[in-house]
Amino acid sequence: MSQTLYVINPNSSEAVTAGIDAAMAPLRRPEGPAIRCVTLADGPPGVQTQHDVDRAALSVRRFAEAHLEGTAAFVTACFSDPGLHMLREMRGPLAFGISECAALTALTLGQSFGVIAILPASIPRHWRTWGAMGIQQRVAGEVAIGRTVSELSDQTATLEAMIAAGRRLRDENGANVLVMGCAGMAPFRAPLQEATGLPVVEPTQAAVSMALGRIQLGW
Amino acid sequence: MSQTLYVINPNSSEAVTAGIDAAMAPLRRPEGPAIRCVTLADGPPGVQTQHDVDRAALSVRRFAEAHLEGTAAFVTACFSDPGLHMLREMRGPLAFGISECAALTALTLGQSFGVIAILPASIPRHWRTWGAMGIQQRVAGEVAIGRTVSELSDQTATLEAMIAAGRRLRDENGANVLVMGCAGMAPFRAPLQEATGLPVVEPTQAAVSMALGRIQLGW
Amino acid sequence: MSQTLYVINPNSSEAVTAGIDAAMAPLRRPEGPAIRCVTLADGPPGVQTQHDVDRAALSVRRFAEAHLEGTAAFVTACFSDPGLHMLREMRGPLAFGISECAALTALTLGQSFGVIAILPASIPRHWRTWGAMGIQQRVAGEVAIGRTVSELSDQTATLEAMIAAGRRLRDENGANVLVMGCAGMAPFRAPLQEATGLPVVEPTQAAVSMALGRIQLGW
Amino acid sequence: MSQTLYVINPNSSEAVTAGIDAAMAPLRRPEGPAIRCVTLADGPPGVQTQHDVDRAALSVRRFAEAHLEGTAAFVTACFSDPGLHMLREMRGPLAFGISECAALTALTLGQSFGVIAILPASIPRHWRTWGAMGIQQRVAGEVAIGRTVSELSDQTATLEAMIAAGRRLRDENGANVLVMGCAGMAPFRAPLQEATGLPVVEPTQAAVSMALGRIQLGW
Amino acid sequence: MSQTLYVINPNSSEAVTAGIDAAMAPLRRPEGPAIRCVTLADGPPGVQTQHDVDRAALSVRRFAEAHLEGTAAFVTACFSDPGLHMLREMRGPLAFGISECAALTALTLGQSFGVIAILPASIPRHWRTWGAMGIQQRVAGEVAIGRTVSELSDQTATLEAMIAAGRRLRDENGANVLVMGCAGMAPFRAPLQEATGLPVVEPTQAAVSMALGRIQLGW
Amino acid sequence: MSQTLYVINPNSSEAVTAGIDAAMAPLRRPEGPAIRCVTLADGPPGVQTQHDVDRAALSVRRFAEAHLEGTAAFVTACFSDPGLHMLREMRGPLAFGISECAALTALTLGQSFGVIAILPASIPRHWRTWGAMGIQQRVAGEVAIGRTVSELSDQTATLEAMIAAGRRLRDENGANVLVMGCAGMAPFRAPLQEATGLPVVEPTQAAVSMALGRIQLGW
Repeated sequence: MSQTLYVINPNSSEAVTAGIDAAMAPLRRPEGPAIRCVTLADGPPGVQTQHDVDRAALSVRRFAEAHLEGTAAFVTACFSDPGLHMLREMRGPLAFGISECAALTALTLGQSFGVIAILPASIPRHWRTWGAMGIQQRVAGEVAIGRTVSELSDQTATLEAMIAAGRRLRDENGANVLVMGCAGMAPFRAPLQEATGLPVVEPTQAAVSMALGRIQLGW
Repeated sequence: MSQTLYVINPNSSEAVTAGIDAAMAPLRRPEGPAIRCVTLADGPPGVQTQHDVDRAALSVRRFAEAHLEGTAAFVTACFSDPGLHMLREMRGPLAFGISECAALTALTLGQSFGVIAILPASIPRHWRTWGAMGIQQRVAGEVAIGRTVSELSDQTATLEAMIAAGRRLRDENGANVLVMGCAGMAPFRAPLQEATGLPVVEPTQAAVSMALGRIQLGW
Repeated sequence: MSQTLYVINPNSSEAVTAGIDAAMAPLRRPEGPAIRCVTLADGPPGVQTQHDVDRAALSVRRFAEAHLEGTAAFVTACFSDPGLHMLREMRGPLAFGISECAALTALTLGQSFGVIAILPASIPRHWRTWGAMGIQQRVAGEVAIGRTVSELSDQTATLEAMIAAGRRLRDENGANVLVMGCAGMAPFRAPLQEATGLPVVEPTQAAVSMALGRIQLGW
Repeated sequence: MSQTLYVINPNSSEAVTAGIDAAMAPLRRPEGPAIRCVTLADGPPGVQTQHDVDRAALSVRRFAEAHLEGTAAFVTACFSDPGLHMLREMRGPLAFGISECAALTALTLGQSFGVIAILPASIPRHWRTWGAMGIQQRVAGEVAIGRTVSELSDQTATLEAMIAAGRRLRDENGANVLVMGCAGMAPFRAPLQEATGLPVVEPTQAAVSMALGRIQLGW
Repeated sequence: MSQTLYVINPNSSEAVTAGIDAAMAPLRRPEGPAIRCVTLADGPPGVQTQHDVDRAALSVRRFAEAHLEGTAAFVTACFSDPGLHMLREMRGPLAFGISECAALTALTLGQSFGVIAILPASIPRHWRTWGAMGIQQRVAGEVAIGRTVSELSDQTATLEAMIAAGRRLRDENGANVLVMGCAGMAPFRAPLQEATGLPVVEPTQAAVSMALGRIQLGW
Repeated sequence: MSQTLYVINPNSSEAVTAGIDAAMAPLRRPEGPAIRCVTLADGPPGVQTQHDVDRAALSVRRFAEAHLEGTAAFVTACFSDPGLHMLREMRGPLAFGISECAALTALTLGQSFGVIAILPASIPRHWRTWGAMGIQQRVAGEVAIGRTVSELSDQTATLEAMIAAGRRLRDENGANVLVMGCAGMAPFRAPLQEATGLPVVEPTQAAVSMALGRIQLGW
């Protein structure tokens, strides 16, 4: 298979893209689709507001239109799934969103999942997504760590905040699986899982692994 | 009150805007806010695909940013509510979507509302909205008349199709109130109501009437 | 328009009616419908039990039957919406309930609303209403201040309790908009909003503003 | 046990009360509570409108207040459960509604229940009840036979209409259990079950059998 | 009536069966069905894991197949309702589960019920049941006391833990009725109710009382 | 990777296993996990009743216990997911059910999925699953083709019945994606998709593709 699976980071942070790219390691196979992680240069530093999401959506679509040839699937790698439903209208490549796939994956790992968000303002937007997906009954709750995407680079402080959020979701909200609510949190999956004792879903890995399977199936 | 309420038709059809403008007649008062219905010249002829919706969203936002001064409220007058949540992030004017307000209004007129959509492809998008709003239990169903926004101008055929859709929603889906799922359907409210015997919600009227009340309240 | 919109306070407390009446100020317009706030002399001092609600319902209905002439709309101004569905069976005037309209208005101001109730015993009744409306997914929770309607007149203590309840709904339940669950709380909207930083819905204002719009529309 | 269980028919139809009384036969035991079926003389001929329901509610409450002594439980025997929540506020006797108990019983007999209503106008009211109970997901649908309570006495025509409704609920709505949505339908349980092949819930029997068990338990 | 109602304790603990048997006292009547509480010798000491549940299910079914003659109803007396839907496929006796009946009974006693579970690992399984029943909206939450079925025999410590759990469900989750989530908790109903001030549902009593009523009805 | 992924057909039909095995072709890779499809000799010819499901569950568990060594994942390949939650309690291999994964996959392909069941009696069981998963809002409906697992071997008649069911789900229930509700339907995916114009989910492929991704991720 010589096709490409594009993982589109719709913010302009190369550091986030590098983190995503590293997380793809276990999913790459010599004979599999090439997994290419790209940064949208015209994106915001972090997708945080609804305005960011909606602009990112069109950037993602433009990227996709320019890269249809030889593409097997697009993954929009921001937890607000910018452009997902536009991608699905295009003929040809498959389309996946990391938020949708993270949630679906979490449903196989526990009865009630908790989401660790970056900023409080993202939480209502996420609830609209869970509502549109019709899966709110399975969401234990969301806790924001109160850090912007760029502040995630302070790894010690970020991990500490994520562990605190994860424990709160586990102990107060009854979560039995955690979803990391930002592509930029990819490096923290393993230590978060260890510290909380709960399975942790890294959303881009969740989406790309689902995408790879569907590419193989061809439907 | 010298403020303005903008009703933004995000498609480029002046005929649709004229229909909306006519529907505003009962809501205009000498001393009330000016109700200005505008056409976004850079919009598509009709907002039909998700791509149309997402492009329209940014056009609506750009319009709003350029018209903050003296504006009391913006109404995004397409049944997919393009840009609504972006508008709500802006400080200052209130923001309403015609789909959201139509649904909320329908909830006061019957236990179960049916939606008359223009095209079948809009229906899944609407269900995502009802899901995000958490009100699916009150939706009896949706029926598409299978006509594009521009084809609505053939008034006889359109009304006939709408009446058939309304009767199907009433008799098979148990709807006891109907929502017209397109701003371009404004001229058909009264005859549809008469033909079906059910109350009919015209979405732009629903949104503007709610907006006017909230402008008065100032919150 | 020479018609009248009746705001019916189904308890016998003139102080509550006066508070409601004051809250109507921004909604009154010289040429608009007359907004008349009335006290039902045969009502209980406060509508607190289900028995109170059900007796109030019939009082509201009797009042409506005696005031059909020249009436554009009735608003039943108790947070249990006594008589709402009876009013809707009558031909002629429109009918609105302050609980229903408060909830619908809250849905435009945040993803998840918290309700400040007067007494703990009201909370199960409110949940039955949210259930009948099919909007429970949007309710963050309810907190009672544990004061009767007549005790609301101690304004300092009441406001303090409401602020504590509002903060709890915001911080523990994730509410991003508050609904005041009693018509008698009308005077506290602005300070509550200031103290909590969340938008606050005053239910009678919400209902009357929706009613005014619908009167204008004539449907 | 010398206590009494009152089955309160809140309409004034002695024929309906007689039908209910006959349906109680299998539930009467020499040493059990006396099951007394009473007609509220001040009730309407049939409880059909919301106004009927709300007036009936207060009649039921008045009856209960006058019959507290020696009473183990009250069953409000109209499918709109008039007065149920008022009865539950009273200290002493247990309180059951036939609609609530019919639904709960149906949940043990099939995954999805269909309701045969008397009049179309009752259906939205029933949906409010299923919503308040939080069990809408288990309701396959409702079909009205379009006959008033007093018209039920034409037994041949009524049964025929009920069978048609039951078959429609089974074949089009996927119901695997039927609920008769009126106390006056009691005589038709067996033939309806035979004609449709589905288990059929007679609501007053459902309520009284639950009440008897709870009286024995004393909680 | 000479028929038998079997209450099947699918764990091998005679102490639990004895507790259940004692709880049956108020439900036994000279002329009623014999209520026989049996221990499945081949069951685990306590049904705690899903493996326990699924093995118990087949034991329950085997018992039922061997005791069809003269049996009016089977009650599967473990809070995971092992075998319930298998029993319902068998012709003849009625079948009830204590979890299902406890929940249905709780719905008549409060708007929102809290469940006291034995072990944290049971909670996700219970939520699957509430989901399958479509009643999650009525569940306030679950709190585990963290004791195995056999540890329930330390009555002082168990009751203390149950009271703490009940108070937490009442005060933090808003429960207004409690369900004891294990047949082995039967002896604690009265003191738990007294300590929390909330009605408490003992699940085997709930199931058997519903079963007795249905046996009388014969449907 | 030298590990094995077991696809466990819990019925004894070698023909069904052969069909599943053929459907695995696109998912097999030289260096990937070995995908081994096994027939449980002690299973029923077809898993049709709840009794079949519950017996199959224990067979699946026994198979898993005997094959832990070197196993990466188990897929329980019957649409009732027998044993799924027992498998998840075991340490080590991952566990997937074809019904759960089919539904999750369908959620990425359309807003509302329709299920083609084999027998009417399976439908209530499926709804319990959708309820336990909390995704009922996304289920358009189910239609049974009324054929047993063994009758699926008459391929012409089966495909015809499946196409009729798919069209009914599309046209009457508004499904925009179809799920084949039996592992034995695997050979019919492509022609069903072509005949209905809707994407069709083959459940075993859906489950194995998700399993393969998760094996690669190692979580």
